Amino acid sequence: MTQVTSTPYEALEVGQTASFSKTVEERDIQLFAAMSGDHNPVHLDAEYAASTMFKERIAHGMFSGALISAAVACELPGPGTIYVGQQMTFQKAVKIGDTLTVRLEILEKLPKFRVRIATRVFNQREELVVDGEAEIIAPRKQQTVTLTTLPAISIG
Amino acid sequence: MTQVTSTPYEALEVGQTASFSKTVEERDIQLFAAMSGDHNPVHLDAEYAASTMFKERIAHGMFSGALISAAVACELPGPGTIYVGQQMTFQKAVKIGDTLTVRLEILEKLPKFRVRIATRVFNQREELVVDGEAEIIAPRKQQTVTLTTLPAISIG
Repeated sequence: MTQVTSTPYEALEVGQTASFSKTVEERDIQLFAAMSGDHNPVHLDAEYAASTMFKERIAHGMFSGALISAAVACELPGPGTIYVGQQMTFQKAVKIGDTLTVRLEILEKLPKFRVRIATRVFNQREELVVDGEAEIIAPRKQQTVTLTTLPAISIG
Repeated sequence: MTQVTSTPYEALEVGQTASFSKTVEERDIQLFAAMSGDHNPVHLDAEYAASTMFKERIAHGMFSGALISAAVACELPGPGTIYVGQQMTFQKAVKIGDTLTVRLEILEKLPKFRVRIATRVFNQREELVVDGEAEIIAPRKQQTVTLTTLPAISIG
């Protein structure tokens, strides 16, 4: 059982950082497609993808968005955070097998527990794949939660 | 086999609309959690969620982002669209069983095939759950693609 502890508004400092990494697997692309309804062959069909400007299959752009969301919810500020807004610019395609690292940095503490956070996503070559910024309402108190264990998911 | 046809830049008109609907199922939340790594119990554990301000389990905010992405990729402009940027503000929590409708509207045609699109998500009570805007590069030519059929996914 994995536990995560939040950083409350009071303890957040401008310049504070956190990161969250995940390797993009075949399975993740299939789960994203099933969940979102986006079955576009550029993400799922190698033969079709070879005929596009990308030359090979790419991850859904919003897959990186999901990782940003996970980083904010589980790393900084963590549990109890309320997501207010997210802005993203997609800089570079993500391929299957790429390892993405979301880098968070506290940019500004605003009134009413609001916080601006830089949310940048890099691949294993340190290339920026998504630039962006989140606005959140930080937790008022520190809390520790136990992350839920998911049932097994099998594909095919 | 479902086929979708894109609307190329030339044929896009300011004010043109499209929509994409999906009911949020238990299964979608589990797939989103598995794919993103966000196992926060507010999304997955009814007992924990009852102790929060939301009173019951809520969908990940970025789940609506994934639906926006699917709407742009599969409906308007459709296949061949390149995602440049997305801005979202999360207005209201989404509960399991809610039916979300993404409403797209072409706002502005920019040079170099770029297009600004309003991307608003409503629930079945016509409440705005996510407001936002996408910037994309539209396809230059119309194309029809066959959406890939996914292998079966079973949970538990």
